[in-house]
Amino acid sequence: LTIGDSPTLAELADRLTRVEDELAIMRLLAAYGPAVDAGESAAAAALWTEDGAYDVGGQSRVVGREELTALYDGQQHQGIIAGGSGHLTSSPTITLSQDTATAVAYSLVCRRAENGFFIWRLSANRWSLVRTAHGWRTKERMNRVLDGGIAARDLLREAVQ
Amino acid sequence: LTIGDSPTLAELADRLTRVEDELAIMRLLAAYGPAVDAGESAAAAALWTEDGAYDVGGQSRVVGREELTALYDGQQHQGIIAGGSGHLTSSPTITLSQDTATAVAYSLVCRRAENGFFIWRLSANRWSLVRTAHGWRTKERMNRVLDGGIAARDLLREAVQ
Amino acid sequence: LTIGDSPTLAELADRLTRVEDELAIMRLLAAYGPAVDAGESAAAAALWTEDGAYDVGGQSRVVGREELTALYDGQQHQGIIAGGSGHLTSSPTITLSQDTATAVAYSLVCRRAENGFFIWRLSANRWSLVRTAHGWRTKERMNRVLDGGIAARDLLREAVQ
Repeated sequence: LTIGDSPTLAELADRLTRVEDELAIMRLLAAYGPAVDAGESAAAAALWTEDGAYDVGGQSRVVGREELTALYDGQQHQGIIAGGSGHLTSSPTITLSQDTATAVAYSLVCRRAENGFFIWRLSANRWSLVRTAHGWRTKERMNRVLDGGIAARDLLREAVQ
Repeated sequence: LTIGDSPTLAELADRLTRVEDELAIMRLLAAYGPAVDAGESAAAAALWTEDGAYDVGGQSRVVGREELTALYDGQQHQGIIAGGSGHLTSSPTITLSQDTATAVAYSLVCRRAENGFFIWRLSANRWSLVRTAHGWRTKERMNRVLDGGIAARDLLREAVQ
Repeated sequence: LTIGDSPTLAELADRLTRVEDELAIMRLLAAYGPAVDAGESAAAAALWTEDGAYDVGGQSRVVGREELTALYDGQQHQGIIAGGSGHLTSSPTITLSQDTATAVAYSLVCRRAENGFFIWRLSANRWSLVRTAHGWRTKERMNRVLDGGIAARDLLREAVQ
């Protein structure tokens, strides 16, 4: 099927699938903030696999959609969004590998203050992602505050390997 | 034209068009900040359709390119950019449908202070977009400050449906 | 090879290459922050061409990978990351042209404070990029702080032309 130097249909389809995967993962990460700031706790949890884990700042490890939903329904998170918050995710660096992928990005939690908003929390994140029957989902999200320590740096380092 | 499980040329072309649409919309949203911070008011207005609307924070609804240009040429906006400002838009969640699309993202207006910059305004946004002869344009942009209220949350919710 | 209105394989391949180029450039820009915040100075320098230049804020012009590595290994940068920092890059506006490209985006340097983080520096940036045997690289990055002056505005303007 190759005509001159033209690629085959199958080759183009493979390349296109990788592009679609990358965009789908960008969309998955971008959907996190709107879900948790809107208070759509179950929708936020559904961005993970059934047994997905969120390792938050070295303080706690939340595992599974039930625990994730409870995290977002919890008093601390509900207090944050009631005060006015934006959970932003920076443009990720994505490394694809057939049915799994890794993404590295910054996350910011901005909260409302007297005059304007302030950055309450700024973290390094590494997502381990898997392709499921329902699209890409997060298997594990590691999150560490950028406090100058080694933990956050180690997560960021994976974007440049 | 299908060879084994290979998709057809027409199927690949359709998928590629969706990918191009998504990137074009990302570019349209990313071009907003540079336009308004550079003081290119007409270029900023041209990101909307001729009759496009910008519903700003529940305070005003600016309709059509003439009104949009006047908004960016106006005293308040000119004062903001003269002081040093960055109108940033976060990575969007885009929902495509043939010739229309919806995008949800955060917008931040950062302004210069004594030492560094502060986030003056942080909002939820929903863009209703249409494909025109000149590419994708905004038909309506709804913008609500993340003040903890229901209006901003309702805009964000559309990213997770 | 055209079947009805279907594009040819070669046409699809060309369009797909442009999409891949755009995503590769987005990834190149997104990889900058993780590299410099992780202290991976050589990896950060490798995002430029061998003779690439970083024109920083009108104060200095750093040329070549050796000087770039020295910049990130230097006392000022090391002090910033030891205190806890995030070098974020906003979603870019990319203009492709065969083997060169231009990108415009904001960069933020966020630093840790007593309670949370503050935006220490917010700048306009224009990247001149080239396709190399190892992928896209930065030939020149112009960076100007958004201080309300003409220099930063001129960089942003290129995103809307």
